[in-house]
Amino acid sequence: MPIIEVHMFEGRTVDQKRKLVAEMTDAVVKSIGVKPEDVRIILQDMARYDYSIAGKLAIDR
Amino acid sequence: MPIIEVHMFEGRTVDQKRKLVAEMTDAVVKSIGVKPEDVRIILQDMARYDYSIAGKLAIDR
Amino acid sequence: MPIIEVHMFEGRTVDQKRKLVAEMTDAVVKSIGVKPEDVRIILQDMARYDYSIAGKLAIDR
Amino acid sequence: MPIIEVHMFEGRTVDQKRKLVAEMTDAVVKSIGVKPEDVRIILQDMARYDYSIAGKLAIDR
Amino acid sequence: MPIIEVHMFEGRTVDQKRKLVAEMTDAVVKSIGVKPEDVRIILQDMARYDYSIAGKLAIDR
Amino acid sequence: MPIIEVHMFEGRTVDQKRKLVAEMTDAVVKSIGVKPEDVRIILQDMARYDYSIAGKLAIDR
Repeated sequence: MPIIEVHMFEGRTVDQKRKLVAEMTDAVVKSIGVKPEDVRIILQDMARYDYSIAGKLAIDR
Repeated sequence: MPIIEVHMFEGRTVDQKRKLVAEMTDAVVKSIGVKPEDVRIILQDMARYDYSIAGKLAIDR
Repeated sequence: MPIIEVHMFEGRTVDQKRKLVAEMTDAVVKSIGVKPEDVRIILQDMARYDYSIAGKLAIDR
Repeated sequence: MPIIEVHMFEGRTVDQKRKLVAEMTDAVVKSIGVKPEDVRIILQDMARYDYSIAGKLAIDR
Repeated sequence: MPIIEVHMFEGRTVDQKRKLVAEMTDAVVKSIGVKPEDVRIILQDMARYDYSIAGKLAIDR
Repeated sequence: MPIIEVHMFEGRTVDQKRKLVAEMTDAVVKSIGVKPEDVRIILQDMARYDYSIAGKLAIDR
Protein backbone atom coordinates (compact mmCIF):
# COMPACT_ATOMS: atom_id res chain seq x y z
CA MET A 1 0.00 0.00 0.00
CA PRO A 2 -0.48 2.34 -1.71
CA ILE A 3 -1.29 0.55 -4.94
CA ILE A 4 -1.52 2.87 -7.92
CA GLU A 5 -2.87 2.25 -11.40
CA VAL A 6 -2.03 4.59 -14.27
CA HIS A 7 -3.96 4.58 -17.56
CA MET A 8 -2.12 6.51 -20.26
CA PHE A 9 -1.82 6.58 -24.03
CA GLU A 10 0.54 4.04 -25.53
CA GLY A 11 3.79 5.24 -27.02
CA ARG A 12 5.95 5.96 -23.98
CA THR A 13 9.38 4.35 -24.03
CA VAL A 14 10.66 2.14 -21.25
CA ASP A 15 12.91 5.03 -20.19
CA GLN A 16 9.95 7.35 -19.81
CA LYS A 17 8.15 4.68 -17.76
CA ARG A 18 11.29 4.24 -15.65
CA LYS A 19 11.32 7.96 -14.92
CA LEU A 20 7.57 8.08 -14.34
CA VAL A 21 7.52 5.38 -11.65
CA ALA A 22 10.57 6.84 -9.89
CA GLU A 23 9.09 10.34 -9.76
CA MET A 24 5.62 9.18 -8.78
CA THR A 25 6.98 6.99 -6.02
CA ASP A 26 8.99 9.91 -4.60
CA ALA A 27 5.90 12.10 -4.74
CA VAL A 28 3.85 9.57 -2.79
CA VAL A 29 6.57 8.90 -0.21
CA LYS A 30 7.08 12.57 0.61
CA SER A 31 3.35 13.41 0.63
CA ILE A 32 1.90 10.72 2.84
CA GLY A 33 4.87 9.25 4.65
CA VAL A 34 4.95 5.66 3.45
CA LYS A 35 8.05 3.57 2.74
CA PRO A 36 9.16 3.34 -0.89
CA GLU A 37 8.84 -0.48 -0.87
CA ASP A 38 5.15 -0.14 -0.10
CA VAL A 39 4.44 1.87 -3.25
CA ARG A 40 3.46 -0.34 -6.16
CA ILE A 41 2.51 1.07 -9.54
CA ILE A 42 0.74 -0.66 -12.42
CA LEU A 43 1.00 1.02 -15.83
CA GLN A 44 -1.64 0.40 -18.46
CA ASP A 45 -1.15 1.62 -22.00
CA MET A 46 -4.19 2.51 -24.05
CA ALA A 47 -4.73 2.94 -27.76
CA ARG A 48 -6.26 6.23 -28.91
CA TYR A 49 -9.35 4.36 -30.12
CA ASP A 50 -9.90 3.07 -26.58
CA TYR A 51 -10.49 6.37 -24.84
CA SER A 52 -13.24 8.95 -25.26
CA ILE A 53 -14.00 12.42 -24.00
CA ALA A 54 -17.48 13.88 -24.54
CA GLY A 55 -18.53 10.80 -26.49
CA LYS A 56 -15.72 11.03 -29.07
CA LEU A 57 -12.79 8.63 -29.34
CA ALA A 58 -9.39 10.31 -28.99
CA ILE A 59 -8.54 9.37 -32.59
CA ASP A 60 -11.51 11.46 -33.77
CA ARG A 61 -10.89 14.60 -31.73
CA MET B 1 -16.18 12.97 -13.76
CA PRO B 2 -17.75 10.53 -14.30
CA ILE B 3 -14.91 8.23 -15.35
CA ILE B 4 -16.08 4.96 -16.80
CA GLU B 5 -14.15 1.79 -17.52
CA VAL B 6 -15.58 -0.88 -19.82
CA HIS B 7 -14.20 -4.44 -19.96
CA MET B 8 -15.46 -6.30 -23.01
CA PHE B 9 -14.40 -9.13 -25.30
CA GLU B 10 -11.98 -8.18 -28.03
CA GLY B 11 -13.21 -8.13 -31.59
CA ARG B 12 -15.22 -4.91 -31.80
CA THR B 13 -14.32 -2.62 -34.68
CA VAL B 14 -13.36 1.01 -34.20
CA ASP B 15 -16.77 1.93 -35.61
CA GLN B 16 -18.54 -0.11 -32.95
CA LYS B 17 -16.39 1.54 -30.28
CA ARG B 18 -17.20 4.95 -31.77
CA LYS B 19 -20.89 4.20 -31.50
CA LEU B 20 -20.53 2.69 -28.03
CA VAL B 21 -18.85 5.74 -26.47
CA ALA B 22 -21.30 8.14 -28.14
CA GLU B 23 -24.35 6.23 -26.90
CA MET B 24 -22.96 5.64 -23.42
CA THR B 25 -22.03 9.29 -23.02
CA ASP B 26 -25.56 10.35 -24.02
CA ALA B 27 -27.00 7.87 -21.53
CA VAL B 28 -24.91 9.28 -18.70
CA VAL B 29 -25.59 12.91 -19.59
CA LYS B 30 -29.34 12.49 -19.67
CA SER B 31 -29.47 10.30 -16.52
CA ILE B 32 -27.42 12.27 -14.04
CA GLY B 33 -27.13 15.73 -15.53
CA VAL B 34 -23.43 16.13 -16.18
CA LYS B 35 -21.79 17.91 -19.11
CA PRO B 36 -20.64 15.71 -22.01
CA GLU B 37 -17.04 16.96 -21.64
CA ASP B 38 -16.94 15.55 -18.13
CA VAL B 39 -17.69 12.01 -19.29
CA ARG B 40 -14.52 10.04 -19.96
CA ILE B 41 -14.61 6.40 -21.04
CA ILE B 42 -11.78 3.88 -21.04
CA LEU B 43 -12.30 0.73 -23.15
CA GLN B 44 -10.42 -2.45 -22.31
CA ASP B 45 -10.52 -5.41 -24.67
CA MET B 46 -10.17 -8.88 -23.23
CA ALA B 47 -9.31 -12.20 -24.79
CA ARG B 48 -11.74 -15.08 -24.20
CA TYR B 49 -9.08 -16.90 -22.20
CA ASP B 50 -8.89 -13.96 -19.79
CA TYR B 51 -12.40 -14.10 -18.43
CA SER B 52 -14.18 -16.75 -16.41
CA ILE B 53 -17.69 -17.43 -15.16
CA ALA B 54 -18.26 -20.15 -12.55
CA GLY B 55 -14.59 -21.10 -12.66
CA LYS B 56 -14.49 -21.74 -16.43
CA LEU B 57 -12.68 -19.60 -18.96
CA ALA B 58 -14.95 -18.18 -21.69
CA ILE B 59 -13.08 -20.24 -24.31
CA ASP B 60 -14.15 -23.44 -22.50
CA ARG B 61 -17.82 -22.68 -22.04
CA MET C 1 -19.43 -9.26 -20.24
CA PRO C 2 -19.26 -6.35 -20.62
CA ILE C 3 -18.40 -5.33 -17.07
CA ILE C 4 -18.54 -1.59 -16.51
CA GLU C 5 -17.27 0.49 -13.61
CA VAL C 6 -18.48 4.05 -13.10
CA HIS C 7 -16.69 6.51 -10.80
CA MET C 8 -18.83 9.55 -10.08
CA PHE C 9 -19.30 12.16 -7.38
CA GLU C 10 -21.44 11.11 -4.44
CA GLY C 11 -24.85 12.67 -4.07
CA ARG C 12 -26.97 10.87 -6.65
CA THR C 13 -30.20 9.38 -5.37
CA VAL C 14 -31.11 5.74 -5.83
CA ASP C 15 -33.61 6.87 -8.47
CA GLN C 16 -30.90 8.58 -10.47
CA LYS C 17 -28.75 5.45 -10.22
CA ARG C 18 -31.73 3.35 -11.30
CA LYS C 19 -32.13 5.52 -14.40
CA LEU C 20 -28.38 5.61 -15.05
CA VAL C 21 -27.93 1.83 -15.16
CA ALA C 22 -31.05 1.35 -17.29
CA GLU C 23 -29.94 3.94 -19.87
CA MET C 24 -26.32 2.79 -19.92
CA THR C 25 -27.34 -0.82 -20.37
CA ASP C 26 -29.58 0.09 -23.31
CA ALA C 27 -26.74 2.10 -24.85
CA VAL C 28 -24.35 -0.86 -24.62
CA VAL C 29 -26.89 -3.39 -25.91
CA LYS C 30 -27.73 -1.38 -29.00
CA SER C 31 -24.12 -0.38 -29.76
CA ILE C 32 -22.31 -3.69 -29.58
CA GLY C 33 -25.03 -6.30 -29.76
CA VAL C 34 -24.78 -8.08 -26.42
CA LYS C 35 -27.66 -9.42 -24.35
CA PRO C 36 -28.89 -7.18 -21.49
CA GLU C 37 -28.18 -9.94 -18.92
CA ASP C 38 -24.53 -9.81 -19.86
CA VAL C 39 -24.17 -6.14 -18.97
CA ARG C 40 -23.08 -5.64 -15.38
CA ILE C 41 -22.44 -2.21 -13.93
CA ILE C 42 -20.61 -1.29 -10.73
CA LEU C 43 -21.19 2.24 -9.39
CA GLN C 44 -18.60 3.87 -7.15
CA ASP C 45 -19.36 7.14 -5.41
CA MET C 46 -16.51 9.49 -4.67
CA ALA C 47 -16.18 12.41 -2.29
CA ARG C 48 -15.04 15.72 -3.77
CA TYR C 49 -11.84 15.53 -1.74
CA ASP C 50 -11.01 12.23 -3.45
CA TYR C 51 -10.69 13.47 -7.02
CA SER C 52 -8.25 15.90 -8.59
CA ILE C 53 -7.80 17.64 -11.92
CA ALA C 54 -4.53 19.41 -12.67
CA GLY C 55 -3.23 18.66 -9.18
CA LYS C 56 -6.17 20.27 -7.36
CA LEU C 57 -8.82 18.44 -5.39
CA ALA C 58 -12.38 19.02 -6.66
CA ILE C 59 -13.27 20.74 -3.35
CA ASP C 60 -10.59 23.38 -4.07
CA ARG C 61 -11.48 24.21 -7.66
CA MET D 1 -21.04 -10.70 -7.82
CA PRO D 2 -18.32 -11.06 -6.76
CA ILE D 3 -16.36 -9.60 -9.64
CA ILE D 4 -12.64 -10.15 -9.37
CA GLU D 5 -9.79 -8.58 -11.31
CA VAL D 6 -6.32 -10.15 -11.29
CA HIS D 7 -3.21 -8.27 -12.45
CA MET D 8 -0.28 -10.62 -12.98
CA PHE D 9 2.88 -10.84 -15.05
CA GLU D 10 2.42 -12.10 -18.58
CA GLY D 11 3.72 -15.53 -19.45
CA ARG D 12 1.14 -17.88 -17.94
CA THR D 13 -0.24 -20.49 -20.31
CA VAL D 14 -3.93 -20.95 -20.94
CA ASP D 15 -3.75 -24.12 -18.85
CA GLN D 16 -2.39 -22.19 -15.88
CA LYS D 17 -5.14 -19.62 -16.29
CA ARG D 18 -7.70 -22.43 -16.50
CA LYS D 19 -6.44 -23.82 -13.21
CA LEU D 20 -6.19 -20.37 -11.61
CA VAL D 21 -9.82 -19.40 -12.26
CA ALA D 22 -11.10 -22.81 -11.15
CA GLU D 23 -9.17 -22.71 -7.87
CA MET D 24 -9.96 -19.07 -7.15
CA THR D 25 -13.66 -19.60 -7.81
CA ASP D 26 -13.70 -22.57 -5.40
CA ALA D 27 -11.92 -20.47 -2.78
CA VAL D 28 -14.50 -17.70 -3.06
CA VAL D 29 -17.49 -20.04 -3.06
CA LYS D 30 -16.40 -21.85 0.08
CA SER D 31 -15.33 -18.69 1.94
CA ILE D 32 -18.32 -16.42 1.49
CA GLY D 33 -21.11 -18.70 0.36
CA VAL D 34 -21.94 -17.44 -3.11
CA LYS D 35 -22.96 -19.55 -6.11
CA PRO D 36 -20.21 -20.44 -8.58
CA GLU D 37 -22.12 -18.76 -11.45
CA ASP D 38 -21.93 -15.46 -9.62
CA VAL D 39 -18.13 -15.45 -9.52
CA ARG D 40 -16.65 -13.67 -12.50
CA ILE D 41 -12.91 -13.23 -12.91
CA ILE D 42 -11.05 -10.88 -15.25
CA LEU D 43 -7.36 -11.67 -15.87
CA GLN D 44 -4.99 -8.91 -16.94
CA ASP D 45 -1.48 -9.74 -18.06
CA MET D 46 1.25 -7.17 -17.49
CA ALA D 47 4.68 -6.74 -18.99
CA ARG D 48 7.59 -6.48 -16.54
CA TYR D 49 8.19 -2.90 -17.68
CA ASP D 50 4.66 -1.99 -16.61
CA TYR D 51 4.99 -2.67 -12.91
CA SER D 52 7.13 -1.04 -10.26
CA ILE D 53 7.99 -1.61 -6.62
CA ALA D 54 9.79 1.13 -4.67
CA GLY D 55 10.06 3.25 -7.81
CA LYS D 56 11.83 0.60 -9.89
CA LEU D 57 10.33 -1.25 -12.84
CA ALA D 58 10.28 -5.04 -12.42
CA ILE D 59 12.70 -5.41 -15.36
CA ASP D 60 15.28 -3.36 -13.41
CA ARG D 61 15.05 -5.14 -10.08
CA MET E 1 2.29 -9.37 -8.10
CA PRO E 2 -0.32 -10.65 -8.50
CA ILE E 3 -2.55 -7.83 -7.33
CA ILE E 4 -6.18 -8.80 -6.99
CA GLU E 5 -9.25 -6.65 -6.55
CA VAL E 6 -12.54 -8.15 -5.34
CA HIS E 7 -15.86 -6.34 -5.66
CA MET E 8 -18.56 -7.96 -3.53
CA PHE E 9 -21.75 -7.03 -1.74
CA GLU E 10 -21.32 -5.45 1.67
CA GLY E 11 -22.30 -7.46 4.72
CA ARG E 12 -19.44 -9.92 5.13
CA THR E 13 -17.87 -10.03 8.58
CA VAL E 14 -14.18 -9.53 9.19
CA ASP E 15 -13.94 -13.28 9.85
CA GLN E 16 -15.39 -14.07 6.43
CA LYS E 17 -12.93 -11.64 4.84
CA ARG E 18 -10.10 -13.25 6.83
CA LYS E 19 -11.07 -16.64 5.43
CA LEU E 20 -11.61 -15.29 1.92
CA VAL E 21 -8.14 -13.77 1.57
CA ALA E 22 -6.46 -16.85 3.06
CA GLU E 23 -8.25 -19.23 0.69
CA MET E 24 -7.81 -17.02 -2.37
CA THR E 25 -4.11 -16.57 -1.68
CA ASP E 26 -3.65 -20.35 -1.39
CA ALA E 27 -5.53 -20.83 -4.65
CA VAL E 28 -3.27 -18.37 -6.46
CA VAL E 29 -0.06 -19.74 -4.98
CA LYS E 30 -0.81 -23.31 -5.98
CA SER E 31 -2.13 -22.44 -9.44
CA ILE E 32 0.57 -20.18 -10.80
CA GLY E 33 3.53 -20.75 -8.53
CA VAL E 34 4.09 -17.37 -6.91
CA LYS E 35 5.21 -16.73 -3.34
CA PRO E 36 2.45 -15.94 -0.83
CA GLU E 37 4.06 -12.57 0.04
CA ASP E 38 3.59 -11.48 -3.57
CA VAL E 39 -0.17 -11.94 -3.47
CA ARG E 40 -1.97 -8.76 -2.47
CA ILE E 41 -5.74 -8.55 -2.32
CA ILE E 42 -7.93 -5.46 -2.16
CA LEU E 43 -11.54 -5.98 -1.01
CA GLN E 44 -14.23 -3.51 -2.03
CA ASP E 45 -17.68 -3.71 -0.50
CA MET E 46 -20.62 -2.54 -2.57
CA ALA E 47 -24.15 -1.57 -1.62
CA ARG E 48 -26.96 -3.35 -3.46
CA TYR E 49 -27.99 -0.06 -5.05
CA ASP E 50 -24.53 0.23 -6.61
CA TYR E 51 -24.62 -2.85 -8.82
CA SER E 52 -26.83 -3.71 -11.78
CA ILE E 53 -27.46 -6.71 -13.99
CA ALA E 54 -29.46 -6.26 -17.19
CA GLY E 55 -30.08 -2.62 -16.38
CA LYS E 56 -31.66 -3.27 -12.97
CA LEU E 57 -30.08 -2.41 -9.63
CA ALA E 58 -29.62 -5.43 -7.33
CA ILE E 59 -32.11 -3.92 -4.83
CA ASP E 60 -34.79 -4.07 -7.54
CA ARG E 61 -34.27 -7.62 -8.75
CA MET F 1 -5.27 11.20 -19.83
CA PRO F 2 -3.49 10.01 -17.81
CA ILE F 3 -6.11 8.76 -15.37
CA ILE F 4 -4.66 7.53 -12.11
CA GLU F 5 -6.26 5.53 -9.33
CA VAL F 6 -4.67 5.35 -5.89
CA HIS F 7 -5.68 2.74 -3.29
CA MET F 8 -4.37 3.62 0.15
CA PHE F 9 -5.21 3.06 3.80
CA GLU F 10 -7.83 5.37 5.25
CA GLY F 11 -6.75 7.97 7.74
CA ARG F 12 -5.10 10.65 5.61
CA THR F 13 -6.37 14.16 6.15
CA VAL F 14 -7.67 16.33 3.35
CA ASP F 15 -4.44 18.33 3.61
CA GLN F 16 -2.35 15.22 2.99
CA LYS F 17 -4.55 14.36 0.01
CA ARG F 18 -4.17 17.92 -1.26
CA LYS F 19 -0.40 17.57 -1.12
CA LEU F 20 -0.48 14.06 -2.59
CA VAL F 21 -2.39 15.01 -5.74
CA ALA F 22 -0.28 18.15 -6.28
CA GLU F 23 3.00 16.22 -6.00
CA MET F 24 1.83 13.27 -8.06
CA THR F 25 0.54 15.52 -10.82
CA ASP F 26 3.89 17.36 -10.97
CA ALA F 27 5.69 14.02 -11.13
CA VAL F 28 3.57 12.87 -14.07
CA VAL F 29 3.82 16.16 -15.94
CA LYS F 30 7.60 16.29 -15.77
CA SER F 31 8.10 12.58 -16.55
CA ILE F 32 5.95 12.09 -19.61
CA GLY F 33 5.24 15.57 -20.88
CA VAL F 34 1.50 15.91 -20.55
CA LYS F 35 -0.43 19.03 -19.56
CA PRO F 36 -1.47 19.31 -15.90
CA GLU F 37 -5.16 19.59 -16.87
CA ASP F 38 -4.97 16.15 -18.44
CA VAL F 39 -3.92 14.46 -15.20
CA ARG F 40 -6.86 13.19 -13.23
CA ILE F 41 -6.44 11.31 -9.97
CA ILE F 42 -9.00 9.21 -8.10
CA LEU F 43 -8.24 8.45 -4.44
CA GLN F 44 -9.74 5.39 -2.78
CA ASP F 45 -9.42 4.89 0.95
CA MET F 46 -9.35 1.36 2.29
CA ALA F 47 -9.92 -0.05 5.76
CA ARG F 48 -7.18 -2.26 7.19
CA TYR F 49 -9.56 -5.23 7.11
CA ASP F 50 -9.95 -4.78 3.36
CA TYR F 51 -6.38 -5.45 2.30
CA SER F 52 -4.25 -8.57 2.59
CA ILE F 53 -0.64 -9.53 2.00
CA ALA F 54 0.32 -13.21 1.95
CA GLY F 55 -3.22 -14.20 2.83
CA LYS F 56 -3.41 -12.11 6.01
CA LEU F 57 -5.55 -9.01 6.46
CA ALA F 58 -3.55 -5.88 7.37
CA ILE F 59 -5.31 -5.75 10.78
CA ASP F 60 -3.84 -9.19 11.59
CA ARG F 61 -0.26 -8.58 10.58
